[in-house]
Amino acid sequence: METTTVKAYGTAAADAPLNEMTIKRRTVQPHDVEIEILYCGICHSDLHQIRNDFGGTQWPIVPGHEMVGRITAVGDHVRNFQKGELAAIGCIVDSCGHCEYCHDGIEQFCDEGVTFSFNSTDTISGGHTFGGFSKTYVCHEKYVLHMPAFKDLAASAPLLCAGITVYSPLKHWGAGPGKKVGILGIGGLGHLAIKIAKAMGAHVTVFTTSPSKVADAKRLGADEAVLSSDADQMAQYSRKLHFIIDTVSARHDVNAYLHLLRHEGAVVLVGLPPEPLEISAFGVIVGNRSFAGSNIGGIAETQEMLDFCFQHNITAESEIIDIQYVNTAFERLEKGDVKYRFVIDMASLTD
Amino acid sequence: METTTVKAYGTAAADAPLNEMTIKRRTVQPHDVEIEILYCGICHSDLHQIRNDFGGTQWPIVPGHEMVGRITAVGDHVRNFQKGELAAIGCIVDSCGHCEYCHDGIEQFCDEGVTFSFNSTDTISGGHTFGGFSKTYVCHEKYVLHMPAFKDLAASAPLLCAGITVYSPLKHWGAGPGKKVGILGIGGLGHLAIKIAKAMGAHVTVFTTSPSKVADAKRLGADEAVLSSDADQMAQYSRKLHFIIDTVSARHDVNAYLHLLRHEGAVVLVGLPPEPLEISAFGVIVGNRSFAGSNIGGIAETQEMLDFCFQHNITAESEIIDIQYVNTAFERLEKGDVKYRFVIDMASLTD
Repeated sequence: METTTVKAYGTAAADAPLNEMTIKRRTVQPHDVEIEILYCGICHSDLHQIRNDFGGTQWPIVPGHEMVGRITAVGDHVRNFQKGELAAIGCIVDSCGHCEYCHDGIEQFCDEGVTFSFNSTDTISGGHTFGGFSKTYVCHEKYVLHMPAFKDLAASAPLLCAGITVYSPLKHWGAGPGKKVGILGIGGLGHLAIKIAKAMGAHVTVFTTSPSKVADAKRLGADEAVLSSDADQMAQYSRKLHFIIDTVSARHDVNAYLHLLRHEGAVVLVGLPPEPLEISAFGVIVGNRSFAGSNIGGIAETQEMLDFCFQHNITAESEIIDIQYVNTAFERLEKGDVKYRFVIDMASLTD
Repeated sequence: METTTVKAYGTAAADAPLNEMTIKRRTVQPHDVEIEILYCGICHSDLHQIRNDFGGTQWPIVPGHEMVGRITAVGDHVRNFQKGELAAIGCIVDSCGHCEYCHDGIEQFCDEGVTFSFNSTDTISGGHTFGGFSKTYVCHEKYVLHMPAFKDLAASAPLLCAGITVYSPLKHWGAGPGKKVGILGIGGLGHLAIKIAKAMGAHVTVFTTSPSKVADAKRLGADEAVLSSDADQMAQYSRKLHFIIDTVSARHDVNAYLHLLRHEGAVVLVGLPPEPLEISAFGVIVGNRSFAGSNIGGIAETQEMLDFCFQHNITAESEIIDIQYVNTAFERLEKGDVKYRFVIDMASLTD
């Protein structure tokens, strides 16, 4: 397949910093869309995969899966996108298209294996996929999102992963008027969960271990903020919440939160703690509760989320950086030293 | 409150065997029903509570919460039951009656605290409740079940706890035609889950660690039986099941079963392992799966279950014993040496 050479930022080893490199992208095929990437968010899973924390990393790796850009070319058969328009590409760039999961719009669970935007086997171009820390991206039009004209386009990039990751379970579990929703942890995911749950009409209670974040939770729109280390505060919420979005990526006591749920409530994990979490039998049996998980969302729901966030003027609290700062950004991300998401201005990756 | 003296079997300490004793029951109040207990099932939770495994045991303790009997007296205001009829009393004998959970027919989650048939604070008679290892029981008519005329009345007693414990989640999670349901473990709960799930029309796959139980699973009606220690067999079920009823009361690897679930599937725990279970983040996040729990069922659903089991001729595989054998029965129960439920013939408790 004919390819072009594209400038990118990546690394060839788990213990090496990211550096400028070149990658190859296929030329635009009849159903492809090519975008110039304007902004790319940084997600904790970029860091996990660079370091091979989940195993299976293929080197060289170019991370990035929260891409906002402008269309620079479309294939001959593309009718739904035009050159010059804003567009976005998120986590998913290919799937089989014919299994029941693809049919139901949940391509992330494709029976034949979804292709993620980086570090996945690339069944079209060969090799593995390279992500959005690069000048351009090319993929089939089915996986390209229409990008509304957010006032702060840079700050909208994190919606492509962090946004859909919390929007999908908030919608699935019924966030809306009359519902009491808990948000566990205020970071890249949690701060967007607060904004989206409030926009859906839910009553939002945030649980945090950081006294410094209590005020921030309220600034972000939470109705209540609870210091989770304060047993008296926690006890007041026993059996009060319909469900809790759990954004914590480290070991934590899930049982303490199961007890805050009403009958048939759920703690819904969207963080990725590397070690297993301990769940007591009584934690789920009393009240017919669940410890559930949720993994991003399909393409149609991602589009719905972008339109919802545009309508409600929701973007991520973002620190915009040049790509040359990315290794420092990852170090700070690991320490939780970002409020609440880094976004790379890809104009900084110059020729 | 006026009381009568009733013969029972119980114990005054966690390390003492059960022996004959007398307890007091209130005389029949205007809304009460009194039954002579004909048969009482033995459940693992009887054993847990005798030994104070969950804490909170009040001595002396008289266990038993799977009671089938004949009505010997009704209060002046009782219109729904008549002396001489068959009746049953299960786990629940009182609740506040006015909270939203009682209103919704899930009295087991009563906001003011449900009264269980033994080892609960008795808000009507004072003291604590004494269970069905006794000649009679008295409770408010709201918590009494109409007992269909099962051909094998003794073998129907375990339906009152084991039956409703599996019926409720099977119904909630949608067991029926076209649904693939897993049953984890074949014991008192599991063997009834097989029968009920089949009667609901589901395709039933049983998972067991015992080669000797594979044939038994099929005899009980399972479509398929899998030796869970056989990795090749297990791999064939990856992403195949809609949900799994997990009846195991010991430490076990839940993640191995989460992987067998389809999108949005659940492993639903009804066993009571005393130690926490380890759940990996990927186990629930991949496929938006859940590790859920289910706790018995409300009175209305228990009546529905009894009628369903009568219609489908479902009773427990039972070993009928005299009450004098009960300490040996508990020893055998602990070793898993019963196929699949002990039922006490209460006629053996003579004057």
